[in-house]
Amino acid sequence: MAEEKLPTQKENFAEWYNQLVQKAELADYAPVRGCMVVRPYGWTLWENMQAGLDRRFKETGHVNAAFPILIPLSFFEKEKEHVEGFSPELAIVTHGGGEKLEEPLVVRPTSETIIGYMYSKWIKSWRDLPVLINQWGSVLRWELRTKLFLRTAEFYWQEGHTAHATEEEAREETYRMLDVYADFAITDAAIPVFKGVKSDTEKFAGAQMSTSIEAMMGDKRALQSGTSHFFGQNFAKAFDIQFLDKNNTLQYCHTTSWGLSTRMIGAVIMVHGDDQGLKLPPKIAPIQVVLVPIYKNLDEKSRVMEVADNIFAELKGAGIRIKMDDRDEVTPGFKYNDWEMRGVPLRIEVGPRDVEKGSVALARRDIPGRESKSFVPQADLARTVSQLLSEIQASMLRQATEFRDANIHHPKDYAELKEVVKDGWAFAWWCGSRECEAKVKEETKATTRVIPFDQPIDTGKCIVCGELAEKKVYFARAY
Amino acid sequence: MAEEKLPTQKENFAEWYNQLVQKAELADYAPVRGCMVVRPYGWTLWENMQAGLDRRFKETGHVNAAFPILIPLSFFEKEKEHVEGFSPELAIVTHGGGEKLEEPLVVRPTSETIIGYMYSKWIKSWRDLPVLINQWGSVLRWELRTKLFLRTAEFYWQEGHTAHATEEEAREETYRMLDVYADFAITDAAIPVFKGVKSDTEKFAGAQMSTSIEAMMGDKRALQSGTSHFFGQNFAKAFDIQFLDKNNTLQYCHTTSWGLSTRMIGAVIMVHGDDQGLKLPPKIAPIQVVLVPIYKNLDEKSRVMEVADNIFAELKGAGIRIKMDDRDEVTPGFKYNDWEMRGVPLRIEVGPRDVEKGSVALARRDIPGRESKSFVPQADLARTVSQLLSEIQASMLRQATEFRDANIHHPKDYAELKEVVKDGWAFAWWCGSRECEAKVKEETKATTRVIPFDQPIDTGKCIVCGELAEKKVYFARAY
Repeated sequence: MAEEKLPTQKENFAEWYNQLVQKAELADYAPVRGCMVVRPYGWTLWENMQAGLDRRFKETGHVNAAFPILIPLSFFEKEKEHVEGFSPELAIVTHGGGEKLEEPLVVRPTSETIIGYMYSKWIKSWRDLPVLINQWGSVLRWELRTKLFLRTAEFYWQEGHTAHATEEEAREETYRMLDVYADFAITDAAIPVFKGVKSDTEKFAGAQMSTSIEAMMGDKRALQSGTSHFFGQNFAKAFDIQFLDKNNTLQYCHTTSWGLSTRMIGAVIMVHGDDQGLKLPPKIAPIQVVLVPIYKNLDEKSRVMEVADNIFAELKGAGIRIKMDDRDEVTPGFKYNDWEMRGVPLRIEVGPRDVEKGSVALARRDIPGRESKSFVPQADLARTVSQLLSEIQASMLRQATEFRDANIHHPKDYAELKEVVKDGWAFAWWCGSRECEAKVKEETKATTRVIPFDQPIDTGKCIVCGELAEKKVYFARAY
Repeated sequence: MAEEKLPTQKENFAEWYNQLVQKAELADYAPVRGCMVVRPYGWTLWENMQAGLDRRFKETGHVNAAFPILIPLSFFEKEKEHVEGFSPELAIVTHGGGEKLEEPLVVRPTSETIIGYMYSKWIKSWRDLPVLINQWGSVLRWELRTKLFLRTAEFYWQEGHTAHATEEEAREETYRMLDVYADFAITDAAIPVFKGVKSDTEKFAGAQMSTSIEAMMGDKRALQSGTSHFFGQNFAKAFDIQFLDKNNTLQYCHTTSWGLSTRMIGAVIMVHGDDQGLKLPPKIAPIQVVLVPIYKNLDEKSRVMEVADNIFAELKGAGIRIKMDDRDEVTPGFKYNDWEMRGVPLRIEVGPRDVEKGSVALARRDIPGRESKSFVPQADLARTVSQLLSEIQASMLRQATEFRDANIHHPKDYAELKEVVKDGWAFAWWCGSRECEAKVKEETKATTRVIPFDQPIDTGKCIVCGELAEKKVYFARAY
């Protein structure tokens, strides 16, 4: 119960993050190297994110299924780039039921291979296409340096895997799901993102094209927050996913995959959080409103609790995720700090004077200081609160967008680029060569984050080599 | 598309089951020994079951969280019975990231150990209790003989793990969650169950008391469909889960765990299914209503589809899970058989005469033959259908209960018991000894399924040895 202060973001952003994740009881380190435990508060946040994504997946025609967590090692060897990319990260099961296995099994790091295998069994004809399947679960990638939510050996995610009759359809699907991710990030997580294409060096192992949404964290580093990949026929050929088209000709499918993980929780923490702690967007907050009754004696208590109980019932009945904090062993001030640290968007205080006046005090988490407070009538409180939650959601997106845009620079030359990426992003012309990309990475630690779809209509000169450049790219240091 | 007929249940119940699971696209065998793929139709059924359970868990104060899929092997050795029970079934990870691990890791077969470890970190004081956490996920138990849904190496489930200050509270929790399972089975899955205590030989490895719900399948074998365990302080002592009580004395917690898995899908198939295929209870059916438009030419099609589209929109808007089957490449008769096989509770047919008359034809899946059909007005169809779905749900529970009760026997002596358990259950006095239990198992293959809470008030004589018996027990052959 002792209240140790967080370091400020300025003092030490990394330490602020690490301590906050644990202090807010979002997650904890597991007794297994590199793994995490997602605690109920963090998992409820993830459940709310899942609900927002799953609804969008189903609206776009997808269904969920479940594929095994173990995959034969030989499956990985069927797609050359895929095995090169994932080999160093595999966890291998060698024994089962007390005996050594004939073939080692891999704890899945991603499921293209086993899903590809099943698709080759299920897909026979054009009538079976498209196959639009998503899976919720966890995957395991052996990681050396871990950070809760951002990089752990096991992490939670969804992976969509689709098969299509034509390249065009598969490319459409790739973009459609990136749009779904962007819509989710912006609308539900209040995180502005750029959509675009990854460079060849940054793309997924085995993909012909990887797209991603990229967001700016509070320390101005970038976080890849969701990816959508177009595989062409790579996996279809590796796993023999063929269908008879309408002319009775055997064709390979075109496939895609797309994933968004609990990294997004890391993004929510780092985009919105401040020195007081978390700041959670109302749409996904496990608790949207905390209700704190205030009283000094039993007489006051009985009067206050009657009103508080009614408010609780009214707001809960209106579908608002409300928590009553009626702990007697801590002070109201302690409760305020505690729930602010946990990022609850709105606090309602009810004391004896509020009871008399028919009012309550509200405190918004998204606004600092005195301006966060207001007094409103108890009458029609559910509607007042609902409107305020929408306003908070919008204001959080606005703040995050302003912060991001203020920290995107447009360097004139390479010297300036080197300077600005120390504490921000650079949006600059790039010729597309691996050499220029590698040079920037080596000299500044900034990588190409994404070549946004939204491009100037003209061309320019590569900020590194000065050659003709057809696209601008975001350079930034990234998680 | 070729329609191969299922074997009848009488011909070969096991083969009927195996073929149906695959034909209805509920699940498929994976290319990994003993593992299954749950296909979208099966997974949607599981999602609907999850929703019904999760709601009940949350209503009883539980929250979800996620613990790692890998557990250090040494954790299993901390509770003697637990390690004995699970050792033969473990899958072991020996290598990660290209190197041999210092300590092997187990792919979780169940999570008491790792959750116990975390609880010992989190629980400090009586204020932290009770801890009421559930986890949705999959576990892995190396199985030799597998059967889709009923026994696979990896299976999907939820596992609740709770810690309490007192034995009484922990026992209450154990019973409460059994009640939740029974309510879910009866109300949502339309499966009547007996609640009670498992015998010592049948209980969970490490439990002081295991309780279960037991159901009778269509072949009269029993299926343990959900279990709730009271651990006393066994795991608290093994993992040092202690708290300071209100007198500032260090105490061990009392813990419980409870689980229900995708086995329940097997129960739904085997309790309700018939020779035509699945019969799914409306509350959990992925598709509650299939709408089949019938027409012979384009003119009829345009008139029929206008009405069909309206019906579809009305029912969908009313929250009914409806599917329109407007495939042109198959006949209405094919569609009827197909959706009957897939167990859709209600079919609506709309043809040109229905358009004229303002009516539709309805066909109930729960009633065989002509009586399943009726004609109702199109007006107010959503209400008609909702009522009918409730009626179907109730009728399915009634049918399953009548079938079960008709196949429970009350043998007078051991000779009769041996006879009746060949094709039914026996409810009989049992002295409680392992010897009598073992004798029955050896001579009849029937095991003690559950000692029901619901007992006669008197005592009797053990059906095996004739000694005093205080409880009656269900004997049956089981999955």
